[in-house]
Amino acid sequence: MDERDENDIESEGLLCDEKELERNGSSFSFSSEKGMMMREPLLVRSRTNNTSQIAIVGANVCPIESLDYEIVDNDLFKQDWRSRNKVQIFQYLVLKWTLALLIGLSTGLVGFFNNLGVENIAGFKLLLTSNLMLWERYYLAFAAYAGCNMVLAIAAAALCAYIAPAAAGSGIPEVKAYLNGVDAHSILAPSTLFVKIFGSIFGVAAGFVVGKEGPMVHTGSCIANLLGQGGSKKYHLTWKWLRYFKNDRDRRDLITCGAAAGVAAAFRAPVGGVLFALEEAASWWRSALLWRTFFTTAVVAVVLRSLIEFCRSGKCGLFGQGGLIMFDVNSAVPTYSSPDLLAVILLGIIGGVFGSLYNYLVDKVLRTYSIINERGPPFKILLVVIISFLTSCCSYGLPWLAKCTPCPDGLKEECPTIGSSGNYKNFQCPPGQYNDLASLLLNTNDDVIRNLFSSGNEEEFHLSTLLICFVTIYCLGIITYGIAIPSGLFIPVILAGASYGRLVGTLLGSVSELDVGLFALLGAASFLGGTMRMTVSLCVILLELTNDLLMLPLVMLVLLISKTVADSFNKGVYDQIVKMKGLPYMEAHAEPYMRHLVARDVVSGPLISFSGVEKVGNILHTLQMTKHNGFPVIDEPPFSETPELCGLVLRSHLLVLLKGKKFTKQKLLSGSVILNRFHAFDFAKPGSGKGLKLEDLDIKEEEMELYVDLHPITNTSPYTVVETMSLAKAAVLFRELGLRHLCVVPKTPGRPPVVGILTRHDFMPEHILELYPHIKLHK
Amino acid sequence: MDERDENDIESEGLLCDEKELERNGSSFSFSSEKGMMMREPLLVRSRTNNTSQIAIVGANVCPIESLDYEIVDNDLFKQDWRSRNKVQIFQYLVLKWTLALLIGLSTGLVGFFNNLGVENIAGFKLLLTSNLMLWERYYLAFAAYAGCNMVLAIAAAALCAYIAPAAAGSGIPEVKAYLNGVDAHSILAPSTLFVKIFGSIFGVAAGFVVGKEGPMVHTGSCIANLLGQGGSKKYHLTWKWLRYFKNDRDRRDLITCGAAAGVAAAFRAPVGGVLFALEEAASWWRSALLWRTFFTTAVVAVVLRSLIEFCRSGKCGLFGQGGLIMFDVNSAVPTYSSPDLLAVILLGIIGGVFGSLYNYLVDKVLRTYSIINERGPPFKILLVVIISFLTSCCSYGLPWLAKCTPCPDGLKEECPTIGSSGNYKNFQCPPGQYNDLASLLLNTNDDVIRNLFSSGNEEEFHLSTLLICFVTIYCLGIITYGIAIPSGLFIPVILAGASYGRLVGTLLGSVSELDVGLFALLGAASFLGGTMRMTVSLCVILLELTNDLLMLPLVMLVLLISKTVADSFNKGVYDQIVKMKGLPYMEAHAEPYMRHLVARDVVSGPLISFSGVEKVGNILHTLQMTKHNGFPVIDEPPFSETPELCGLVLRSHLLVLLKGKKFTKQKLLSGSVILNRFHAFDFAKPGSGKGLKLEDLDIKEEEMELYVDLHPITNTSPYTVVETMSLAKAAVLFRELGLRHLCVVPKTPGRPPVVGILTRHDFMPEHILELYPHIKLHK
Repeated sequence: MDERDENDIESEGLLCDEKELERNGSSFSFSSEKGMMMREPLLVRSRTNNTSQIAIVGANVCPIESLDYEIVDNDLFKQDWRSRNKVQIFQYLVLKWTLALLIGLSTGLVGFFNNLGVENIAGFKLLLTSNLMLWERYYLAFAAYAGCNMVLAIAAAALCAYIAPAAAGSGIPEVKAYLNGVDAHSILAPSTLFVKIFGSIFGVAAGFVVGKEGPMVHTGSCIANLLGQGGSKKYHLTWKWLRYFKNDRDRRDLITCGAAAGVAAAFRAPVGGVLFALEEAASWWRSALLWRTFFTTAVVAVVLRSLIEFCRSGKCGLFGQGGLIMFDVNSAVPTYSSPDLLAVILLGIIGGVFGSLYNYLVDKVLRTYSIINERGPPFKILLVVIISFLTSCCSYGLPWLAKCTPCPDGLKEECPTIGSSGNYKNFQCPPGQYNDLASLLLNTNDDVIRNLFSSGNEEEFHLSTLLICFVTIYCLGIITYGIAIPSGLFIPVILAGASYGRLVGTLLGSVSELDVGLFALLGAASFLGGTMRMTVSLCVILLELTNDLLMLPLVMLVLLISKTVADSFNKGVYDQIVKMKGLPYMEAHAEPYMRHLVARDVVSGPLISFSGVEKVGNILHTLQMTKHNGFPVIDEPPFSETPELCGLVLRSHLLVLLKGKKFTKQKLLSGSVILNRFHAFDFAKPGSGKGLKLEDLDIKEEEMELYVDLHPITNTSPYTVVETMSLAKAAVLFRELGLRHLCVVPKTPGRPPVVGILTRHDFMPEHILELYPHIKLHK
Repeated sequence: MDERDENDIESEGLLCDEKELERNGSSFSFSSEKGMMMREPLLVRSRTNNTSQIAIVGANVCPIESLDYEIVDNDLFKQDWRSRNKVQIFQYLVLKWTLALLIGLSTGLVGFFNNLGVENIAGFKLLLTSNLMLWERYYLAFAAYAGCNMVLAIAAAALCAYIAPAAAGSGIPEVKAYLNGVDAHSILAPSTLFVKIFGSIFGVAAGFVVGKEGPMVHTGSCIANLLGQGGSKKYHLTWKWLRYFKNDRDRRDLITCGAAAGVAAAFRAPVGGVLFALEEAASWWRSALLWRTFFTTAVVAVVLRSLIEFCRSGKCGLFGQGGLIMFDVNSAVPTYSSPDLLAVILLGIIGGVFGSLYNYLVDKVLRTYSIINERGPPFKILLVVIISFLTSCCSYGLPWLAKCTPCPDGLKEECPTIGSSGNYKNFQCPPGQYNDLASLLLNTNDDVIRNLFSSGNEEEFHLSTLLICFVTIYCLGIITYGIAIPSGLFIPVILAGASYGRLVGTLLGSVSELDVGLFALLGAASFLGGTMRMTVSLCVILLELTNDLLMLPLVMLVLLISKTVADSFNKGVYDQIVKMKGLPYMEAHAEPYMRHLVARDVVSGPLISFSGVEKVGNILHTLQMTKHNGFPVIDEPPFSETPELCGLVLRSHLLVLLKGKKFTKQKLLSGSVILNRFHAFDFAKPGSGKGLKLEDLDIKEEEMELYVDLHPITNTSPYTVVETMSLAKAAVLFRELGLRHLCVVPKTPGRPPVVGILTRHDFMPEHILELYPHIKLHK
């Protein structure tokens, strides 16, 4: 039992009114400026807290709800921990693994469904075109091809523009930011999930140079969020057990599993999925998570394997063996000589340059498109239509430039492939010949990659074909990302990289002993390293895709080189998009300039705090006037000898408390009443957009004058830093512990017990630069 | 410039004398007990700080130097950061990568050398035995075999017992503890490295059931430590640039790279090495580390590959293809049916049970052996001799129980292998026949594993052979770990697991379609999962060992099951050894009972602090009397209005400061003098055992009365918690930020500004249980 429950002192304490708050704010402001001027002659501006909870960083405006991974330590939760028995802990464990299983199952199913949809729709489209061309009705064939693409593109764009704008793009940057603590609006909502699945199918089937891998990661995360959150609470659709998961830590763990499952489903790479989640997605990592993520991706792998087994018998329409990309390069290279290594190093360097250039151009294009997209859904769709037409023209028009090639002898496949969506396109060629550029441009992405990776036959593609293919895909990839359809970046980069690698391989054919298929793989690796800047996860994904361990050292080498080269130019593409979207991403390390600032230099005022037992009217007024999410609670006489920091209270908890209406007429401690009335689960964090709103409260005029005891819901152990703490160390504390609010306390006694609150926004370079424009922001 | 430099106030302040320190301590003690009794009726004992810096946990006594990963924020280091220019940053970067490269190169070379040594020595031994047997001189053969083993065993044991006792055992638990912040005595010293390399070669060649994988990890870490630390500072053997690496963060990063390189060298598994470092070794992980570790293991892979290529021409004596284990299971199983899955699940469950039993027995044996080993080096050697003789008897004696088997037709290999250390041992058999048990027991470990994993031929080993082999290796493995030789746990577990798996596979031959070689692999996986409790890294290591991706889902399944089963019995073997060795390992999560305690409940007194400008005699006296490593510095009037916490000063920094002898007659601020006299690198953390000792100081009697300004070396931003902070949250802060000292500050004003200091020891369950015996320690 808490000691407060026994001392129900009745008395009238001092209330924090508006004026006092103002005074607190300004008094702090003064001391801060004084302290700072003493150290460094920096320009000091007036600071207000208006941008602190609504992050306005970069070009875009993005309302953010931060996640909070801290253990909340209030009386209510303590009571709950004490009462948790072994059965409940067992329930929790069982449910945790069940959810991991369900995430794996559903992501595997969705991933398979996605592939099935794409292969069948795109396959039908290509079959139609191919048949029309066989009858030499070339214009009609183009009309059919471009028309199909257009219809699919418009469907994808309409879904995106009207139902869930958050579903556009890759989704990986948003998931990454979410796992860093940035809960952007509706990024994991069910509508986003729906649009992501179907938009991705239509978009990829429409022949755009986009992948389904990024969207799969986003889809996996949405599935995890939906499963962990349960259905609507209002209609009692949520499962009672799921209450254990209504907190940030478990939610984040589930979404990490979902992201890993997405990669596993996209590439059929279970270990790669785990590593991707670790290297690229997650900001906080625990050993237990590795273990659970691994389980989820294993389930995905088993589901996919069984479904593909099922499809082997031909029951899945046009979905063939190639539905899920899995390339057998099989170019066992037991030895390689020094010229080979030099060639590979060269490949890595150029790949790094092209990769960073890709990032630079994608950024520019994204900024241009965002101006168009902001004008409304019709403009979004118009942009998609234009790009779709351009893509159709390229895929259909450019193959006319290529000469016909006689089919090689001794092929297992049919050549040219007539009447099916095969790899040796006849296009305009006479029987017995094929158009090699059409095989690369007028085909599904998976088939193109398989063609490029195919080993042995150096003559299969001409040099000019590979050059045209590389330039086309590189350019189309850049201008396609950013239009309002779900679009992954992996496939465009792999396609461009593989054609570039095969081009280099063909050029160096006389110098190097290595196979052209292997060169294509290394080219893809170099581009991936240059744009995504991942290392181990890419390596393992490529390993699992190609099923050849012997090329591992070469892939590692090329990734290392291309990443190093590209890192000297700019940041990885996902980091770049996170920044461009204005998501306040906290880096894991403190910036060097932070070492020269202290915590009080960046806190923004005025500080608004509550008394331990506060007037209802005051709380309501404050909640209306500000958008802050956390307020310090200060105990004042008679509840303590001097004003002291009791803890931190969250807006969402205040709303639940006010809704409960356990008010008292006198200013007294009524903690035990509140502890009996409420249960910890009432304060569990609701899913995004589902929590109580201020408008849901129905406080009568006469209740405004009553008091409410905030102690039971106050987090009595908030992390604090002294105002003279180095900002670098405060940033490390904030980031490592995943905080949302960090209380800054005064160094000297005799001042108000809290100087200010640091939030994520206060650590952003943009904020600090605004306060101290003379500070050098290192790269 | 610091403000203190300008205010050289001359005055006589109050000095913290012994009495006052006592008073501080007791006053805290009182308030703490009062606060606690109010909350929970727990038994309160008197607490002293005597065990706080010297951890006495569990059965063993182990003096610990903790690592400290915090950014030290004092004036001297700030001056240094400001002065660091771009050239220095570039130097640092270049050196970082150079060191990673060097670690990779040396670990690769050492790994190769290790294999070369083992293969040649053991090969010669087996050849001799085999030849003697061929001439039917069975007793002489046994004498030669047992004699060779004995000599090698004594050599290994003597090295271990007399030169570096820390080199005994696997070394992985110690590396794991080091990376958690526990710097156990001479665990990474050059002598340990030397003994680890040669002791491991002799030990493995002596035919013990031990592996070279654990020692390789330890070797890699030692190499990394040695390279990062440079040679002796006294003889100017250290490289000037290495000064950048004289801090905990860089040292830990290097050692993580070393551990990964060790695994990569042991298993030729670069990705597995990275994952091992991540999953099992490291306690703190950064994305940048992934990248650098990956580079190191890639270098190891390339070095090994080139050296093996070199040996292919037969220049390496008896070192054949099998020198580095790399098994081609090649049992491509595209499909498996439900009975197969059931068999695999059963295998996993039994594997988990056997694995946890293994841990339990190893723990018991270790405790018994530690009693023997404590009696001195001769006893250690005696124990080794006994085990060696027992092992020789088993390996030579048991094959006599087996019947001779006719050689299978159509073998590529010679059968029986006469005159070389081959796989089909003739033993006592007539020509054309071989002894299958001798192939498993009288052979090098690598060859045995290859034999067990070999696919296709179900008849190769009889059921009884496999059973005898399993029981022998399981028992020998348990009694061998803990003797005074470097001994890895991987190989015994893989051997026992593989023979168990093949046994089950042979038994289920009629039910399951799976190959016996695959069953052996799955058996090994289940044992590894049951003892080591790693998942992803084991999976990838097995993947890289066997080079077959298609069995990945089955390996994952078996690992998941065996880990889950074994986790319900006990902890992983490395965690168990860490605990048994009494290393104060900080778990990543806070224990549930910590939620019911607050920070002041566990701080131990008396608190000893220094004044901002302190008398030299006082400092010296305090350093002599206590073994504390950190002291709070408290500013008192006239340097501040009221006593306030200035920061934290480290023992090692105090020693350097006293050595410099920049004392003043008056009690005044002399920071600028000290800042000019010293450079930040003077205070850089020395390698273990190399720092200044108290005896190195030469303070004269008259200097005792002088004063020294502690401000420039005081870390002015120590992390602090309020005394009422939940212990769980304080533990999370301590662990996540890698702290060594955590200051506890009072909640109410008017008391001394520091209540106490929390160290690693204060969070140990043993310490808390001693204070509060009624607390339930959950599992």
